[in-house]
Order: sequence, then structure tokens, then C-alpha cells
Amino acid sequence: MTAPPDLRETDRTRLRRLAARGTFDRSLVEAVLDEAYLAHVGFVVDGEPRVLPMTYGRVDDVLYLHGAAGNAMLKAASGVEVCVTVTILDGLVLARSAFHHSMNYRSVVLLGRAEKVLDPEEKTRAVDAIVEHVVPGRGAETRPSSPSELRATTVLRLRIEEGSAKVRTGDAIDEPDDVESAHWAGVVPLRLVAGAPIANGDLAPELADRSPRAERFDRTARRRDTTTTT
Amino acid sequence: MTAPPDLRETDRTRLRRLAARGTFDRSLVEAVLDEAYLAHVGFVVDGEPRVLPMTYGRVDDVLYLHGAAGNAMLKAASGVEVCVTVTILDGLVLARSAFHHSMNYRSVVLLGRAEKVLDPEEKTRAVDAIVEHVVPGRGAETRPSSPSELRATTVLRLRIEEGSAKVRTGDAIDEPDDVESAHWAGVVPLRLVAGAPIANGDLAPELADRSPRAERFDRTARRRDTTTTT
Repeated sequence: MTAPPDLRETDRTRLRRLAARGTFDRSLVEAVLDEAYLAHVGFVVDGEPRVLPMTYGRVDDVLYLHGAAGNAMLKAASGVEVCVTVTILDGLVLARSAFHHSMNYRSVVLLGRAEKVLDPEEKTRAVDAIVEHVVPGRGAETRPSSPSELRATTVLRLRIEEGSAKVRTGDAIDEPDDVESAHWAGVVPLRLVAGAPIANGDLAPELADRSPRAERFDRTARRRDTTTTT
Repeated sequence: MTAPPDLRETDRTRLRRLAARGTFDRSLVEAVLDEAYLAHVGFVVDGEPRVLPMTYGRVDDVLYLHGAAGNAMLKAASGVEVCVTVTILDGLVLARSAFHHSMNYRSVVLLGRAEKVLDPEEKTRAVDAIVEHVVPGRGAETRPSSPSELRATTVLRLRIEEGSAKVRTGDAIDEPDDVESAHWAGVVPLRLVAGAPIANGDLAPELADRSPRAERFDRTARRRDTTTTT
């Protein structure tokens, strides 16, 4: 099987601002998608924008979104154009000037038509992928979805094809005159950290030692090197 | 001065799914906005949705967004309907069944017309608020924006008026039959943590001890009690 190509640059995904921070590199796009937990999904209702946070899963070059079958948003977004944006905030960039303050981040914007998944086998693969995306290995530790639970779930498919990633890393970039000023400048790194698991109130005491281990929530292993620095 | 009222419930902000998790309580909405760093801003271009991550600042019942004056998104979003969504992910909810996996979160969705700020004094207040939002007290430690830097910045104003918040907290909620199963259930808390500040490569060595202290990046003080648990 051939690896899918990089993402398509089109009129609507061409990077206008700070194009040097942008890339269509598929491996970087996938790494960002795999590390983050949430996407912000945009769609249009009666000509107006809506943005909702959603979990997702990835299978090769397909992104799956899901929610309750009654979800008005999923109905609105089904078979229509969506914009799926995933952002990882890596740090606060403190410059000597207010103007040059910035953030270090990695973000992905995907565009395309989200289609409702009807085939039960694909639907099962999609909900499995979403659980595995959040906690790798968790699928084997849970009761799988029943046919009626699957019917109560709406799954949307978006091909990872048109879109782009943007990355900012590194130091604050100040005006030459400001570099001599007495203000501190640098980066405050930010990281999403998992705390110790808290057992459910109704968990049988003998299951307490089955609590998942912390390293399963370390997402940094999913990172790839990002060389863009602007 | 009277405190502004709670947010307006309208046809387009009425909570349809899991309404028990939703609220129009202004103090909760403000607490979420004040704790988070990023908003995902949705707007419509040629009938299609776009969602971009942006920083912001709040002054009373006004949210300010900003970016470079050449930013195509800010041009498109100026004077048009936007949807500003802010999400704080608080934990992964691991149920015994795949179906009942969930997330603990606090999110805010604001709707309204974003208007370009033209008055230079309001623009200055807005960019100050954005820097203070990211790092409280930072404004006093930087060179303020010059008139030409302000001209190079586009600021949008969105009144915090129409919208809602949603909150999920607490345990996984399983089917009664599944509670007896041998699967672990509970919550893995997630928290955005600031690491030790990294000085800019070009920072004069004698300024190293001016590095900002870690407690300035502890956002949890901005939290208010959220009693909704569903």
C-alpha cells in the first residue's frame, strides 16, 4: 500500500499569513492529530458559523467524529462542509514589547465534506478508533458497543486530504532596539499533564489495582520533530 | 454600576443535547474565559466554515480578539457573525463500556457580530487586556505598543451576551449491568501545566533572575465552583 500524499494546497488552504510557519506535510498533520484530544469542528447553520469541541479518531487518512444520533450539530454537519481545527498549545512567548508577544503551538486545519458513516463495520472501526485515540489499549478493557448503542451513535467521516498545519517554536523575536531593554524575554512551556487516575465511586475495591498507568497518558511519544521555527 | 445579566438564551443558543450540563450563568462563563488561553473562532467565508485558534482578552462583558491587520480571517470576521468557542479539558472519563466513555470539560460558546475597534483608546485597552489575559502583570514589564504597531493590529470586539456554557464533571456513568463487570472505571484528570521559563537566546545574563515566577501561570485560581454534575 502506498502512503497517502501530503495534503492538498488549494485556494482555500493556501497560507496567507506567515506562510513560513505552514506546511502540508502529512506526517506532521498526523502527529498533531494523534497527540491532541479535541477538535473544534466548524459548520454553517442558516448561514451562520457554529463551532463545537469534539473528540475524534484517525484511521489512516480518515478522521472520524462521533456523537449521539440526536445531536443537532452532527445532523447539521452531515454531508456538509466542515472545518476541523486541532490546536496544541506548547508555550507562551514573552517578548520585550507587548506587540511581539506570541504563542508556540502546533495546529491543523482540515476542510472537506463530512459524510455520515452507514456501514456497521466501518462504524465499529470508527468508534474503536476514537476510544483508542483517547486511551491506547482501552478497547480491550471495555465492553464493546452493542448494536443498539451503535445505532444511537452518529459517526461522520472526513478524509484528511485538504488542509494544512502551522507550527511556531522557539524564542521571542523582538525589534533590535528592544533587545537591549531591561525586560525579560523567553518562553514559558505549557504541557497537558495527566494526574493520578481517580477510581469511580462505584468501583469494586478489588479492581482498584487495575487503574491505568500514567505512561498511557503521555502523548509526547506521538510527536515528530518539527523543524519550522519562525 | 450594575453587573451585566446572565447570557441570553435564544433559539440558536438553546441547549438541545444534555441540557442539564448547560448554563447561562455569567460568572461561570467569565471564569472559563479567564482560565483558558485560546479560543477557536468560527466564521463563514463564501458560505463555508472556517475555524482558527486565537488568543483573546476580556474587559467586563466584552471579548477582544486581535491579529495582524493583513490577516484575511480578521478581515472576513469583521462586522460578521462569529462563533467563539473556548474549551478547557479537565479529564478523561473511562467507563466500563466503550459507549459511555466521555470527557470532563468546561466550554463556552459565544455568538454575535464581531466589530472592528477603531477608537485608538479602546484598541489600546484591548491589546493591554490580551497581554494581561495571557500573563497577569506582564503589561508593566514590556514596552507598550507604539502607534504604528497599533495600526498594524486589527482588534475585534464581541459583546459577551448571547451564548452558553457547558460543564461535565465527576464519575463515569455506566449501565447497571456493566457496573458489576471486571473493568476499571474512573477519571484521569488533565491539567495544563507551565514548565520552568526558558530565557531567550539573546537575553542579557544579568536579566536571568527576572524570569517570571511559576505561580503567575497557575490559572486554577480563576476557577469558580461548578456544581453541575451529569
